[in-house]
Amino acid sequence: MDKIEHIGIAVKDLDNSNQLFEKLFGKPAYKLEEVASEGVRTSFFESGPNKIELLEGTNENSPISRFIEKKGEGIHHIAFAVKDIVSEIKRLKEEGFIVLNETPKKGADNKLVAFLHPKTSNGVLVELCQDIPG
Amino acid sequence: MDKIEHIGIAVKDLDNSNQLFEKLFGKPAYKLEEVASEGVRTSFFESGPNKIELLEGTNENSPISRFIEKKGEGIHHIAFAVKDIVSEIKRLKEEGFIVLNETPKKGADNKLVAFLHPKTSNGVLVELCQDIPG
Repeated sequence: MDKIEHIGIAVKDLDNSNQLFEKLFGKPAYKLEEVASEGVRTSFFESGPNKIELLEGTNENSPISRFIEKKGEGIHHIAFAVKDIVSEIKRLKEEGFIVLNETPKKGADNKLVAFLHPKTSNGVLVELCQDIPG
Repeated sequence: MDKIEHIGIAVKDLDNSNQLFEKLFGKPAYKLEEVASEGVRTSFFESGPNKIELLEGTNENSPISRFIEKKGEGIHHIAFAVKDIVSEIKRLKEEGFIVLNETPKKGADNKLVAFLHPKTSNGVLVELCQDIPG
């Protein structure tokens, strides 16, 4: 866990929230990206070594839409940068964490990602992410 | 907003959660601190340039106890490091954010802190924090 790579925030309306976070940070999002396989549109803001990712669900079945329906807008997950996601998945499974993606999958921002179930991590949805080499 | 200073996570039992996060990070908390004025016991874990702060309420009226009663354990707030908290408070008020502490107060970890109301920041409780000089 080298650093907090980003914090994911679930929002209802990405365009409105982009304006809001532009005011908060005093600068605009540096990237917009749709991850069709996850049913989300995202934007990224920089805060020094860290990022804030805003996520809007693009359909009712998107995990983000379901999260907002249940809990409202707000912080959705914490992502930690790791050097070797495969060995971290193995280590965390051995420690008793439930890993939702035993094989890491392609996420936004050119990363390999895997999630830990909030049930085994104090209600916190934890994402591991590793830069895709090359 | 120079970086994510820390993420605050509300927990029911700090001792249990310290063991859990020690497994997650592969190393123990580097500091335990009680902030009596806020009714919380805290612990801090390092993740590179960032920290994770676990917070347990020490009485029923603690904001942390009330948060857990309403939403369960989980991510409570994001704190951003700022160089000049007084000018950031002024700037954010002018941008339309509701600042809960117009005069910054003393927080954990030798910081001056102020919070933004989640109502004006997409459901996210945002903390600003500045190192106390000297």
